[in-house]
Amino acid sequence: MADKQSTKPPAGTRDFLPDDIRRREHVIGVVRRIYERYGFEPLETPAFENIETLTGKYGEEGNKLIFKILRRGEHEASGEADLALRYDLTVPLARVVAQYQNELPRLFKRYQIQPVWRADRPARGRFREFFQCDLDAMGSTSPVVEADILSAVCEILTTLGFADFAVRLNHRRVLTALLDAAGVAAPLHGDALVALDKLDKIGVDGVGKEFAARGIPGAAGAKALELFAAAPEAPEAALRRMQEMLPGHDGVANLDDIVQLTGATAAAGRIRIDPSLARGLSYYTGAIMEIAVEGIGSLGGGGRYDNLIGMFLGRDVPACGFSLGLERIIVIMTERSMFPAVVTGGAVDLVVTFLDDESRPEALRLAAELRRAQLRVDVFPDSGRKMDKPLKYAAARGARAMAIVGENERQRGEVSIRNLETREQQAVRTEEAAAFVASLQP
Amino acid sequence: MADKQSTKPPAGTRDFLPDDIRRREHVIGVVRRIYERYGFEPLETPAFENIETLTGKYGEEGNKLIFKILRRGEHEASGEADLALRYDLTVPLARVVAQYQNELPRLFKRYQIQPVWRADRPARGRFREFFQCDLDAMGSTSPVVEADILSAVCEILTTLGFADFAVRLNHRRVLTALLDAAGVAAPLHGDALVALDKLDKIGVDGVGKEFAARGIPGAAGAKALELFAAAPEAPEAALRRMQEMLPGHDGVANLDDIVQLTGATAAAGRIRIDPSLARGLSYYTGAIMEIAVEGIGSLGGGGRYDNLIGMFLGRDVPACGFSLGLERIIVIMTERSMFPAVVTGGAVDLVVTFLDDESRPEALRLAAELRRAQLRVDVFPDSGRKMDKPLKYAAARGARAMAIVGENERQRGEVSIRNLETREQQAVRTEEAAAFVASLQP
Repeated sequence: MADKQSTKPPAGTRDFLPDDIRRREHVIGVVRRIYERYGFEPLETPAFENIETLTGKYGEEGNKLIFKILRRGEHEASGEADLALRYDLTVPLARVVAQYQNELPRLFKRYQIQPVWRADRPARGRFREFFQCDLDAMGSTSPVVEADILSAVCEILTTLGFADFAVRLNHRRVLTALLDAAGVAAPLHGDALVALDKLDKIGVDGVGKEFAARGIPGAAGAKALELFAAAPEAPEAALRRMQEMLPGHDGVANLDDIVQLTGATAAAGRIRIDPSLARGLSYYTGAIMEIAVEGIGSLGGGGRYDNLIGMFLGRDVPACGFSLGLERIIVIMTERSMFPAVVTGGAVDLVVTFLDDESRPEALRLAAELRRAQLRVDVFPDSGRKMDKPLKYAAARGARAMAIVGENERQRGEVSIRNLETREQQAVRTEEAAAFVASLQP
Repeated sequence: MADKQSTKPPAGTRDFLPDDIRRREHVIGVVRRIYERYGFEPLETPAFENIETLTGKYGEEGNKLIFKILRRGEHEASGEADLALRYDLTVPLARVVAQYQNELPRLFKRYQIQPVWRADRPARGRFREFFQCDLDAMGSTSPVVEADILSAVCEILTTLGFADFAVRLNHRRVLTALLDAAGVAAPLHGDALVALDKLDKIGVDGVGKEFAARGIPGAAGAKALELFAAAPEAPEAALRRMQEMLPGHDGVANLDDIVQLTGATAAAGRIRIDPSLARGLSYYTGAIMEIAVEGIGSLGGGGRYDNLIGMFLGRDVPACGFSLGLERIIVIMTERSMFPAVVTGGAVDLVVTFLDDESRPEALRLAAELRRAQLRVDVFPDSGRKMDKPLKYAAARGARAMAIVGENERQRGEVSIRNLETREQQAVRTEEAAAFVASLQP
């Protein structure tokens, strides 16, 4: 006998049942509403790209994690792949900007909320299919862009109910200049940043050891750690210290600008200059930022990348973006019970039942009337005189009331409405049923 | 020199720019709101399934159109595929019902709006990535389910602005009984239905020729055509004719039930019994239905399929579903200018500009205040004394006004607001700016 076919979703992916989707839609609804208010517009791209669009964009490790799709038709047997699933939303964006350059406004502000796929080893909290939630502004080098993006992201988190978060801010060119000042040779900068990025996790001693392992001379490593290991501090003090170390440096001036401008926005009071923030991706060229919640870690990050789009377009377009960690936000909001009752509440307001087949049209008519009053109404199709099944069903759906239509009710132009919380039942004139149900406490 | 890399989306796929997404979101918003009011809940499944979940479910032709994903890691070179992109939403639904049978309510009503992928040859209006928009109710054989589903779909189309549509209704068991009555042998039923399904396109003579080509005897074919070729008619007349041909047949009684019940719903007056409606898919077992618009054709269809879920679960679960043709609805609504102005209107209400760098914080502060009033506000980051660029940009974004902040304005606690339609400009107290902008005609 053949094995019974598995009905689980593929490893690293999830089925989203109604409650999961309601939670995600709540978060996405807030994100979209606020992004739109900031003048960002939605963009969506296909799930897969031509394979050459993606290869060579994510480094060696990333390349290995791209899901490849077999070429169809006669070539299928060759095992050749010509398409690949989207690995992130940034490379497709760069392709779109190049493709539609004549149709898009000079300053193009878009958001994109779609799944991406990575063939990572599945683990707790690490998925092969997950949503990214990006916003990017292309076409301007002004720090007003950074301030506006940080404001939008802070407003989203505040609206979702987060209070205890901070914006960690740093600058790629400042990082480079500080490494230069510490005496770390330019070819070792990449290695040094990878090690520094772990400061949170492995501490000063750990980073020191990594420096040594990567061939960074002891004195330079010690000096770099001295410059970078300072705790995140209020921006004024940190900027003063940076200005002393790197007089007249344009990266420091840029950070100063951003801090000043955010003072007038929803990000006011949230900014911490953090010299150890490095951000993994190699394409950043200016300010880099991350939102951190005390005791939780990052909820998203981003930065300025002025050269990436040039890979597709042939000329550089300045750009700055931020990616919100949608999956993580949902996990934390669930753990902390931050979702409003309307999201976690019942799926329907009312279940309509009927006592006999002759009452079915009246039950459907009543449902139509209640739905016109914006109530969410289910008709229990296998109704009858026995109430145990519809009652069990109504409870499973989280309904607050059940409406019952039978011969008596029809003759009197009434409907019996049972409050499922108090178990009280009373007859109501059909035309008053909608108002009555609406008046029951959810 | 290497060829410049293509920046087009892959063949058969589309990039959705902001206007495309607004149109789609408008339609999906109506669909979701009404489905929810009918007690249906959202479900989403992964983009890909284990390959054995999909193979063998769609017939030989369908099988060829499944996009297959290469196994990762050491097996990659073998060209073996272990995953495949979702081909429709019905097979994943059947898997989900089997997997979560203990968590789902006895009557499970779900809708699912997600893309599917088919490696069809791309053509005008035929895509390799397109959205399906399904709703299904599982767990009941009652005709109340059919009536409720048809009501939901009719309410959606009416709400979207369609007036001239009808519901074509037929029944699989009635089709079988009529073919029997005409003397078509059971093994030829499938061939006969494929030919009959083309009646619209090739007419009575064409179908007669197809019958002959498929080995259906002349007398049986002629009789079948006589029974089926009747024009769609008012349900009462059609049902009377069917009852005469097939006295006591349960399929005819079921159609009668559905027609009676829909009389109390939003589908009232829309039903046409259409003896020639066959619907391609082989898994239907009861009522089959299709929504047709005069001169346009089908906007979606569905029916009862009581055996499909058993392929995963091991025991049958009765089910009835309907799939709305989202892509087609959007095309027709666009051609007929059926989208409301708010969908096709500008992307922002207002663009804020500043005359000098010192005014940037005030510009951001003003933007924050206007956004609090729910206005969609853009800050033009490269502002300055010259107005040509921001004016061009504001026009491209469809803004109705531009706000200008300079030293004079700041000193007076004012902002200059330029109506982009009338080109009038006037100074307004900052705290009154939101109300003033809201008062401008969009």
